[in-house]
Amino acid sequence: MTNPVRNVLFIMADQLRWDHLGCAGHPWLKTPHLDALARRGVRFANAFVNSGVCGPSRMSYYTGRYPISHGATWNRVPLGVGERTLGEYMRDSGRRLALAGKTHVMPDDEGLRRLALDGGSELGRLLAAGGFEEVDRYDGHHEPGDESGYPAFLRAHGYDSADPWSDFVISGVDGEGRVVSGWQMRNVHLPARVREAHSETAFMTDQAMGFMRRMGDQPWVLHLSYVKPHWPYMAPAPYHAMYTADQCLPVVRSAAEREDEHPVLAAYRQSEESLSFQRDDCIRTVRPAYQGLISQLDAHLGRLFEFMDGQGLLEETLIVFTADHGDFLGDHWLGEKELFYDTVQKVPFVVVDPRPEADTTRGRVDERFVEAVDVVPTLLDALGLQVPSHRVEGRSLLPLLHGGPVDGWREAVYSELDYSFKAARRLLGKPPQEARAFSLRDARWRYVHWLGAPEQLFDLQADPQEFQDLGRDPGHAAVREAMRRQLLDFLARRKHRTTVSDAFVESRTDNHKKAGVFFGQW
Amino acid sequence: MTNPVRNVLFIMADQLRWDHLGCAGHPWLKTPHLDALARRGVRFANAFVNSGVCGPSRMSYYTGRYPISHGATWNRVPLGVGERTLGEYMRDSGRRLALAGKTHVMPDDEGLRRLALDGGSELGRLLAAGGFEEVDRYDGHHEPGDESGYPAFLRAHGYDSADPWSDFVISGVDGEGRVVSGWQMRNVHLPARVREAHSETAFMTDQAMGFMRRMGDQPWVLHLSYVKPHWPYMAPAPYHAMYTADQCLPVVRSAAEREDEHPVLAAYRQSEESLSFQRDDCIRTVRPAYQGLISQLDAHLGRLFEFMDGQGLLEETLIVFTADHGDFLGDHWLGEKELFYDTVQKVPFVVVDPRPEADTTRGRVDERFVEAVDVVPTLLDALGLQVPSHRVEGRSLLPLLHGGPVDGWREAVYSELDYSFKAARRLLGKPPQEARAFSLRDARWRYVHWLGAPEQLFDLQADPQEFQDLGRDPGHAAVREAMRRQLLDFLARRKHRTTVSDAFVESRTDNHKKAGVFFGQW
Repeated sequence: MTNPVRNVLFIMADQLRWDHLGCAGHPWLKTPHLDALARRGVRFANAFVNSGVCGPSRMSYYTGRYPISHGATWNRVPLGVGERTLGEYMRDSGRRLALAGKTHVMPDDEGLRRLALDGGSELGRLLAAGGFEEVDRYDGHHEPGDESGYPAFLRAHGYDSADPWSDFVISGVDGEGRVVSGWQMRNVHLPARVREAHSETAFMTDQAMGFMRRMGDQPWVLHLSYVKPHWPYMAPAPYHAMYTADQCLPVVRSAAEREDEHPVLAAYRQSEESLSFQRDDCIRTVRPAYQGLISQLDAHLGRLFEFMDGQGLLEETLIVFTADHGDFLGDHWLGEKELFYDTVQKVPFVVVDPRPEADTTRGRVDERFVEAVDVVPTLLDALGLQVPSHRVEGRSLLPLLHGGPVDGWREAVYSELDYSFKAARRLLGKPPQEARAFSLRDARWRYVHWLGAPEQLFDLQADPQEFQDLGRDPGHAAVREAMRRQLLDFLARRKHRTTVSDAFVESRTDNHKKAGVFFGQW
Repeated sequence: MTNPVRNVLFIMADQLRWDHLGCAGHPWLKTPHLDALARRGVRFANAFVNSGVCGPSRMSYYTGRYPISHGATWNRVPLGVGERTLGEYMRDSGRRLALAGKTHVMPDDEGLRRLALDGGSELGRLLAAGGFEEVDRYDGHHEPGDESGYPAFLRAHGYDSADPWSDFVISGVDGEGRVVSGWQMRNVHLPARVREAHSETAFMTDQAMGFMRRMGDQPWVLHLSYVKPHWPYMAPAPYHAMYTADQCLPVVRSAAEREDEHPVLAAYRQSEESLSFQRDDCIRTVRPAYQGLISQLDAHLGRLFEFMDGQGLLEETLIVFTADHGDFLGDHWLGEKELFYDTVQKVPFVVVDPRPEADTTRGRVDERFVEAVDVVPTLLDALGLQVPSHRVEGRSLLPLLHGGPVDGWREAVYSELDYSFKAARRLLGKPPQEARAFSLRDARWRYVHWLGAPEQLFDLQADPQEFQDLGRDPGHAAVREAMRRQLLDFLARRKHRTTVSDAFVESRTDNHKKAGVFFGQW
């Protein structure tokens, strides 16, 4: 019997592409500390999110359930009061679960009001925070509010403004001395007006270390959730200038993709973010800054790990490092994320289990399919807590980390999209309930089932860059049919009966006579 | 603009087959009052439940959502605290929503405790009652508890027993003077020991009339939910002897059904209820009693309607009459219900809208597909309340009742089964999460998709009695593929994003700049 881990550090980066790590083979980008982390544990080279958007992806990380099950299918869609999250599951572990940074959890205010729950009560606050105790909550890309100490921290360091985030953190000074905003991507070659030590990434790392210090000898769980390298892509010096445009990955796009375009993709490619990223100058300006932000994140993780090492925490802390999705950065003629390409759906995923049971797999690159929903069961398992199998849809990764034989591991990953809040839906003239897509990806195929639009299919073996959509190709009807069938079984297997456990079902199976009900007797 | 109806009477019978009504063509069974009701309104000849089991079927009636959405997939599985029901939706109507009889709603005690809600509070009680105010709650086939006045009523009428229900209501006296139980179906040719006027059906009808009397001039909504003709099939005199075995529908079964049986059906056919109903003596004993119980129900509905007529209530009350599922009674070599034959899935369904707008359709038999989930939107619509389209999955029947043109009505009905609590699951060696089936039925085909078992397919045109399962027939691969595709789209369209309305989505579509977020700008 394995002993539970003492501490858990669950680190999330925001909008970090899987291929933007040194250890994932990026030829120029340097991430020495993340590479070292991967050597200490297992890097999962085929880890996928369950939705290519912050909100639904994170809710899958926090509930262990697919978006179609947890229902928070877009950013700022509240997680229903009936859904349980990591923080709630972990309360039984005797460890405090703290959050530093971003969660994107939205409280279900209407659901709370309906149940006459006071949102200001301890329970209301916990539900609003997704079960986390907030060391410092900061969801990013907005001037933070009272829930974060960051604005006060900035002002204390001399950034004199009502909105120091907009005026310093995401702004720069152009050649003519004018303050310009990082919201305009043409400006992100400039250094941010904030000093590196006062940047978002530095501040949140400090929060994490402060928390660990305060915890002293007590065990803990910390979700450290960075808002970078997500836009605005403004990096502080020296990271803004660390890479040239020629030290970035080449843009992955083909003229063939614009011929006979899928209607939803055609609509997405007309959005402002896609039109901007269809410009070479935009790609060549943003990608170096994006890489700079990643190297900066890596440097602060190095600082954190060194601190932890000094405190003796590395030997007793299970660490997960991942991201909520990638970023097109012009690939496939697209900006932003959401759609079903590996660029966006595949994420970095490193797990270090400090216990001796994991010694045999250290430094391994595991090619098996991992999904965001696996984090909840993995962490519960590592803490010796039971995984509620009637609700949680992911699987614990511990058997993979501990190197024993694992039968029947998944052969495909699932992701979905609700684009009802997007301009693309309006362009296509669809009502809010019809803007959905459901996708399976296995080792060979990426299949996408759109409501009211043609299917998509990519042959990842013959066409690893996903240029040729075979969704309407008569020669691939049988493949689509097989994928459709798999998807039907997948959707049919979602966990809807969430109010009683499987053990309860077992205990009540065929027991009507014990309950005094004698139907069917002749 | 149609005026809202004043009152609503939503009557449910328990386990009443669609073909066991005079107006549905039964050659011997007399149901004159239900036939008269149908003449005053519309009888939907193709009305289907969304699960062939009390609990999940009723939760679809009460939530307007399919079982895969509301999650209460079996009897006594609690409805999650996040699910809203008819009673809650109607609270805005200014009318009291009262229940007399059975609901099968189970409170989600664990969910309530988790949210620190006191189950004894007014809200807790309302959630436990599925939003109904209970005039008299009685879920049937058990000695009722304190929630019903029935045991006290029985004792007050001289049925001297600690358990008058078991000793009188479902018992008889055999030829040798011994008290015998209706739990043994061999005894149901005997009259119940309870007098007809004190039977369950009479009592609950009295409760309904008492409620209407007490309401006086105030508008109301009453869910009158009978526990009959559900087992135990013990009818009071004279109904126990109203029909002979030769005045019952012939049993629908064929030797061909037992050849190359579907594994799940084979397991069901080994259950006690199926083995009993495979006996001709069982069929010939139970069917006359079952018909007697229906004629009794009809007589009491006649009494109720006469009372309402006298009070002037018929002209101002919308009436729905239906059932939660049918009963095999030996058809297809099966007892009980659950499986996907019309015998069980199709139900009586009559709606009388008293308003002049419905005058053109009075007496009509409408062949369009109706589902249990349509009741919530129909009643909300009739009361002039908005239907929450992001949660409710059914459609209002008012346009059909009002005779105008209706575009794009559904072409198939959906039902599902979770048999994880059944002995059949154990026989098949399946875990609780794998005992599920999902079915679509259109005008031509009945298709069933089982997890981990072969598909079923019946050609309702060539084989209206559903004897020949084409689920593994190579000649019907294309039909199965088409049905599978329809089912995939159906499951993909379930309403999971329940915390924000479609109007909210519309208002927030493509509005990031208004919210101060300027991504994607070059």
